[in-house]
Amino acid sequence: MNVSDLRLRLSQAGQEHLLQFWNELEEAQQVELYAELQAMNFEELNVFFRKATEGFNQSSQQEKVDARMEPVPREVLGSATRDQDQLQAWESEGLLHISQNRVAVLLLAGGQGTRLGVTYPKGMYDVGLPSHKTLFQLQAERILKLQQLAEKCHGNRCTIPWYIMTSGRTMQSTEEFFAKHRYFGLKKENVIFFQQGMLPAMSFDGKIILEEKSKVSMAPDGNGGLYRALAAWDIVGDMERRGVVSVHVYCVDNILVRVADPRFIGFCIQQGADCGAKVVEKTNPTEPVGVVCRVDGVYQVVEYSEISLATAQRRGPDGRLLFNAGNIANHFFTVSFLRDIVNVHEPQLQHHVAQKKIPCVDAQGQRVKPDKPNGIKMEKFVFDIFQFAKKFVVYEVLREDEFSPLKNADSQNGKDNPTTARHALMSLHHCWVLNAGGHFIDENGCRLPAIPRTGAHGQPEAVTAGVADNLKDASDDPIQCEVSPLTSYAGEGLESLVAHREFHAPLIIDEYGVHELVKNGL
Amino acid sequence: MNVSDLRLRLSQAGQEHLLQFWNELEEAQQVELYAELQAMNFEELNVFFRKATEGFNQSSQQEKVDARMEPVPREVLGSATRDQDQLQAWESEGLLHISQNRVAVLLLAGGQGTRLGVTYPKGMYDVGLPSHKTLFQLQAERILKLQQLAEKCHGNRCTIPWYIMTSGRTMQSTEEFFAKHRYFGLKKENVIFFQQGMLPAMSFDGKIILEEKSKVSMAPDGNGGLYRALAAWDIVGDMERRGVVSVHVYCVDNILVRVADPRFIGFCIQQGADCGAKVVEKTNPTEPVGVVCRVDGVYQVVEYSEISLATAQRRGPDGRLLFNAGNIANHFFTVSFLRDIVNVHEPQLQHHVAQKKIPCVDAQGQRVKPDKPNGIKMEKFVFDIFQFAKKFVVYEVLREDEFSPLKNADSQNGKDNPTTARHALMSLHHCWVLNAGGHFIDENGCRLPAIPRTGAHGQPEAVTAGVADNLKDASDDPIQCEVSPLTSYAGEGLESLVAHREFHAPLIIDEYGVHELVKNGL
Repeated sequence: MNVSDLRLRLSQAGQEHLLQFWNELEEAQQVELYAELQAMNFEELNVFFRKATEGFNQSSQQEKVDARMEPVPREVLGSATRDQDQLQAWESEGLLHISQNRVAVLLLAGGQGTRLGVTYPKGMYDVGLPSHKTLFQLQAERILKLQQLAEKCHGNRCTIPWYIMTSGRTMQSTEEFFAKHRYFGLKKENVIFFQQGMLPAMSFDGKIILEEKSKVSMAPDGNGGLYRALAAWDIVGDMERRGVVSVHVYCVDNILVRVADPRFIGFCIQQGADCGAKVVEKTNPTEPVGVVCRVDGVYQVVEYSEISLATAQRRGPDGRLLFNAGNIANHFFTVSFLRDIVNVHEPQLQHHVAQKKIPCVDAQGQRVKPDKPNGIKMEKFVFDIFQFAKKFVVYEVLREDEFSPLKNADSQNGKDNPTTARHALMSLHHCWVLNAGGHFIDENGCRLPAIPRTGAHGQPEAVTAGVADNLKDASDDPIQCEVSPLTSYAGEGLESLVAHREFHAPLIIDEYGVHELVKNGL
Repeated sequence: MNVSDLRLRLSQAGQEHLLQFWNELEEAQQVELYAELQAMNFEELNVFFRKATEGFNQSSQQEKVDARMEPVPREVLGSATRDQDQLQAWESEGLLHISQNRVAVLLLAGGQGTRLGVTYPKGMYDVGLPSHKTLFQLQAERILKLQQLAEKCHGNRCTIPWYIMTSGRTMQSTEEFFAKHRYFGLKKENVIFFQQGMLPAMSFDGKIILEEKSKVSMAPDGNGGLYRALAAWDIVGDMERRGVVSVHVYCVDNILVRVADPRFIGFCIQQGADCGAKVVEKTNPTEPVGVVCRVDGVYQVVEYSEISLATAQRRGPDGRLLFNAGNIANHFFTVSFLRDIVNVHEPQLQHHVAQKKIPCVDAQGQRVKPDKPNGIKMEKFVFDIFQFAKKFVVYEVLREDEFSPLKNADSQNGKDNPTTARHALMSLHHCWVLNAGGHFIDENGCRLPAIPRTGAHGQPEAVTAGVADNLKDASDDPIQCEVSPLTSYAGEGLESLVAHREFHAPLIIDEYGVHELVKNGL
């Protein structure tokens, strides 16, 4: 360890305070701290800080953006509800490219499950489906199924490479989990792990914060840290060598995510897009979701915390919210676009700044939990590269088909938790069975309605002519139905299994067949 | 007691089994049962049963209705989002009529709070607002405020009579509650209580069911029992004597309900309607809400349990659901229309039938809880009179402004519970303050965004330029803000109180002024 060199480097960067407890540390702690600091580029961090905190004025920023926002024009929008006649063509295009090994998926999985209340990576979470599959397994099986669908359609085996970005905190457990589950049937060489970077928290005057005497306060550099990681791990090179042309980027925590969605990919390709955003319609002005829009002709996402209420409430003549393209962190990029980002634009991406209450140590080395913000965290966001796109498109889908995020524990909140995620998937799969001609019946053999009433005991009730108070009984518990991704990717191909048949819930359909489970209090 | 006459009457109606335990009863129980049976018209009940169970075939009924459904045409629709330019005119018309004492409200409050987990009437529920006002109080104060607004506008005092329909189970406690609270400032003579009828549960072969040896299994006759009650209590006569011309009918359990909504009333009056339904847009095909539509040119509500999935999923070219007029049991009727219903049409209303598991006594007099349906309950529905309207209109409003029902206990469900109701009201009132030019700041004096981020501790965070991951932190807890109805009916009139001012939440605005509450873990 060359501590004096380190001390000099720190001093030149104005960060020498980081060694203030050096003499109090045990040797093991000194080794740890030394390694951590040696890996850091302080000049670069100082530049990040300076740039990020320039023009640090909230209200003028909001006014600036707010007044210049324009909605996404119809010409760049593809809509699952308004362009129903084109969906088949888009799907075919996408499946063709998949069959040609030209499509990869990239999973953003750097976050920890803190809000969810777990210490392991979110992808390992089991929301309590009848199958108890984790999010990772559902996504893996959707990849497998798509590869099969493309093969069936075009006659050749194909591969959708799966790039998984973790962070320092999740990489090891994630890799171990995949190895333990034998990559869920995928080939190990087609599942490529890499890691995003970390950035230290900094005080308001640009001093890096110590979490402990021998440890810097570090956090992942935001989902936009993707681009720096793509460079550091030569992921784009790997894509190019594999002949991949289109990349689907998505978040781990959406239980319904259509991984490598052929329709989305086909739409983007047919539009000649280098960059695309999948969105859901925002219908409530105060929903905490960012909106895709244009500012001075340049596409970007305006965060829900940045939009003024007046702007969020604006409606068009059709009655919809004017800014209704809800960003769900689900993107299409061409590999050549990513190559440009990595080679040219990544350093141009501005860090976003959040004021935080950052646990640290005081001058005496005592741990402190501040009651008001004492510093900032800097992050880049994956959507900040829209501005560099030559041809940007937006693809709007239905929430009930494609979006049900898992963010909170069940106890915290009625929304976006394991219960809502589980219900969303089972409700969707129930619709798949009905749409394929199947029916559900109760224990007495009476058909259950598509939208069942729940009785006093919370169980769906059979319904006869003209029943029911439309207000009193909401269907709390959906009919329990789960279709394995290995059987169906998005509801297709079920007719031969279910048409004209009647089933009791809970119902699982997987590669082994159609199974009615014995009711056991699920 | 003339038991032999009763026995004869029962025998003629095929209901003599109701006295099977007579000799085992104590005298007090005999008196009770005798009174209950004497009040019942068995011939009529037999006719109800026969008519209700005719054509008792679910699938053919559904197919019949499904294929013949048509959406509400644009010409009869008024929309808060698509007709924004007309809202002011409608509001003025409504307020004019209110000022002329021509408007009454009628509250459907016959339900018990069973699903909510309480034994008292739902209107007495306190969802935990900062003011702890009950639903009844909120509604009463909206009536008071409207009377004041009409007076301010037109110069004369006016009255909005409040008719409250209870059921046998809720009438006494409701009347006592109002008396205890001195009618919340309203005049006692303008709050008129009446009671809907009850109907016995009946077995599948038309035998009235005994709940106990000395007690018939009774239930309120559905919210459509309103019309028979209007007749029995001469409510329409009372309205006519008061000069009331328009009636707003609504349900007790909507915390946001705009009682006697001037816009709705004005819209209906300007359209020359005798019957109107306020709706919210249904956006999810499987939402458990009935839809207003036309069948063979006649307006009706198709219940969510009656609609097929395919029909529920149909969309128009604009991408919206074809059947998207979600019925929220909120209606406009002219008094002359109600007079027609009472005089002519009420007997023509068909009872709806629900198969139920009805607790009863077996042949030995033992109480039995059946595990499968053993009988039916018959109900009429308030919307079943649409078919008799000469001019029917539909008025569409936003959920965030006007609809947040209270159905479940907090523990049961993430939806439609005290928490969602409380949040919906506070979120709306927060928007009112912002729209009136007020701002909220945190404990450090920094402005909070309109849609705040929540930090690790669940408290809204101040936000600086460009902050925040749009996915990770949802705003679970809205900024706590409550505006008394006595101060503002629908967000109007707040500028003088809040414009250009900054507030700390929790914030209450009432007739005593603007109060920042000390944070006490609310």
